[in-house]
Amino acid sequence: MSVAISATLAANEALDHRRRMGLPVLPLAFGEAGLPVLPSLERQLGTAAGRGAYGPVAGSPDLRTAAAGYWHRRGLPADPDLIVAGPGSKPLLYGLLLAIGGGVVVPRPSWVSYAAQTRLMGAEPIFVETPPGEGGVPDPDALRAAVTLERAAGRPVSCLVVTLPDNPTGTLARPETVRRMCEAARELDLIIIADQIYRDLLFDQHTDFPCPTRYAPERTVITTALSKNLALGGWRIGVALLPEALSGLRDRLAGVASEIWSSTSGPTQQAAAYAFAEPPEVVERVAASRRLHETVARAMAERFTAAGARVPRPQGGFYLYPDFEDLREPLGVDTSAELAALLLDRYGVGVLPGSAFGDAPEALRLRVATSLLYGETDEQRLTALTSPDPAGLPWIAAALDRTSEVFTDLTASSCEERVAVTA
Amino acid sequence: MSVAISATLAANEALDHRRRMGLPVLPLAFGEAGLPVLPSLERQLGTAAGRGAYGPVAGSPDLRTAAAGYWHRRGLPADPDLIVAGPGSKPLLYGLLLAIGGGVVVPRPSWVSYAAQTRLMGAEPIFVETPPGEGGVPDPDALRAAVTLERAAGRPVSCLVVTLPDNPTGTLARPETVRRMCEAARELDLIIIADQIYRDLLFDQHTDFPCPTRYAPERTVITTALSKNLALGGWRIGVALLPEALSGLRDRLAGVASEIWSSTSGPTQQAAAYAFAEPPEVVERVAASRRLHETVARAMAERFTAAGARVPRPQGGFYLYPDFEDLREPLGVDTSAELAALLLDRYGVGVLPGSAFGDAPEALRLRVATSLLYGETDEQRLTALTSPDPAGLPWIAAALDRTSEVFTDLTASSCEERVAVTA
Repeated sequence: MSVAISATLAANEALDHRRRMGLPVLPLAFGEAGLPVLPSLERQLGTAAGRGAYGPVAGSPDLRTAAAGYWHRRGLPADPDLIVAGPGSKPLLYGLLLAIGGGVVVPRPSWVSYAAQTRLMGAEPIFVETPPGEGGVPDPDALRAAVTLERAAGRPVSCLVVTLPDNPTGTLARPETVRRMCEAARELDLIIIADQIYRDLLFDQHTDFPCPTRYAPERTVITTALSKNLALGGWRIGVALLPEALSGLRDRLAGVASEIWSSTSGPTQQAAAYAFAEPPEVVERVAASRRLHETVARAMAERFTAAGARVPRPQGGFYLYPDFEDLREPLGVDTSAELAALLLDRYGVGVLPGSAFGDAPEALRLRVATSLLYGETDEQRLTALTSPDPAGLPWIAAALDRTSEVFTDLTASSCEERVAVTA
Repeated sequence: MSVAISATLAANEALDHRRRMGLPVLPLAFGEAGLPVLPSLERQLGTAAGRGAYGPVAGSPDLRTAAAGYWHRRGLPADPDLIVAGPGSKPLLYGLLLAIGGGVVVPRPSWVSYAAQTRLMGAEPIFVETPPGEGGVPDPDALRAAVTLERAAGRPVSCLVVTLPDNPTGTLARPETVRRMCEAARELDLIIIADQIYRDLLFDQHTDFPCPTRYAPERTVITTALSKNLALGGWRIGVALLPEALSGLRDRLAGVASEIWSSTSGPTQQAAAYAFAEPPEVVERVAASRRLHETVARAMAERFTAAGARVPRPQGGFYLYPDFEDLREPLGVDTSAELAALLLDRYGVGVLPGSAFGDAPEALRLRVATSLLYGETDEQRLTALTSPDPAGLPWIAAALDRTSEVFTDLTASSCEERVAVTA
């Protein structure tokens, strides 16, 4: 099991234990959207329950047509025949890596599963640093250098994975960076897999979204899903869009899909086709979710900043990636894993260490997910979704205050301890 | 894409084309149960549609407890903590092969995906012949010889996959064979993966079912699903039961699952928990399906026998595996692939060649699935399900008669052609 998943499970277990003891907890580890299913989508799934037949490996024509429409509305010509559905975008990513074969470049830091899936294939991921302040995309010059080095050592490199907007940093790479990354990918003949699962949760939807298809349409594969924008992670549905120039890869991906998962749940596909068609209530729900994520992520970012951390301004999704370097001395820890463990053991604050995302162990960065603060019941969560001031709701305000308290106490107590030790 | 899946797709396409031309077709290629979803299960899925959260990687406690009960009722002590759910038993099989690592023994012939999944891992499957008349289990002596040979050549062998009852042959290995196979597996220290997806469709449920757990409980992993007994292939839900002695493998499987598919659809898990609890209407539906499969498979076996093929007596599922060796001359073909192509091109009969299941190309065996003959509408299928004489229903009788006609014509015309050629 990967470091990150073990860490998440350990955090969840420790939090459950503290809850049972009546101790305070702050669940900031797990990347779940934390919102109820939209009622019209519930009804759609119920209506589709009679679909018991296997259906096409690549997904039903309805779903693929709806997903093509979804991409069309985002300025991307998409051919339903070049779309492949899967039980989540995670299996699609794995299927793509397997179908492409060869070495995989992943940004440092990046979502835990890119590296873990690469290792499942028996390879070591090639980590390349992201430019300062921009997550999800490798620095173009560093990409060139790393791939050249690998190839010089006789190791094939065939693709890179990018995340727009990014998990864990909550940021979006600049168009200029994406353009230069795409140029490097073309020079190096790398396929670009662009994970855009957080795209609809980019806070400013008027931002110039730097889709790699703009610069390297011939080599860009896009994956997305309904897990984040519509909080349907548990339904397990994702789609991949391949370029015409890679229709052979589309067939290989379908081949891998047929041998690993056969087809995607028929009822879920039918409900997903409805969602990808974006009727008004779906658009509205995504917009409300985006506002809520933005408000709470920004409010939490302020608390971390006030506590002395440097926090890249969150631009999408529901993650923060604060850096505690300036607090290294008062905190008295050497690694992000130690910091995460300290927060969990002493305060019941569940976060993930940056090292789980491939970051250097000694970098004091943490991934903080703010989406499980919206409430413990669906009623609270729906209230948060429609509130003009969600950060002011008692249960969310309490979580924000608790965060400030914890860091005040942590830096103070760590100082005292150190004084005691060194006195 | 595997040979078998390509062949199935090609057959489907050719059949669709003939249908559009108004020509007769016989869809006997695809292994789908061909029955509607039970209404109470449809309702359960609708009720569970609100489950949008990811949930545990190994499956919800409800589902794992229900699956444990299912196995308990079949005489198998099952610990919910040793059960792992997945989006179908196919991904669970792949996950197991990946988590175990090393060489895989598969029976010859056997379900297409065992070999294909092994190849996806970059290994060649080790095919071992099944004993005459018994499908799904390698001959124990041949197993010893093959594994010894592999290991002598420095290739590690770690597990074997068996199918009880079997696809493609529709037969069940004898208890004595399974006992000897288990002894060999223990001597060779091989993990046994027992795919029992057709177990509930064993026609005689009073048969002494030779589960490998009886002889080698410490090394047997069982997989099953609702795709065949309840015709829910399109829902994508499966479960694996691991022995206590392999709890480390359970954790590795969960690790692989977490990186490839995260978790299994929450709504589907909830509906599956209801099904695995086997309320009366579920038991009744499975029993009715079993009777229908038996009646039609046996009626079709008689037609093949009358046409001059040797057909192992079907014991479960909805497959026949006729051998046309005695008709080699009149048929005028050299391989099973040629025979399948001839049937498809000339008569619109879609079947799969035995070679797709790893059988010798020159062996004239075909896999015939009878389950898509129950009707073209749900109304016809439900009529078939409750009919005291389904083989006498006009649409099923017509398919049976058409089979007889085709072989009469085929052997006659092939003779004539040959006479014409050699005259």
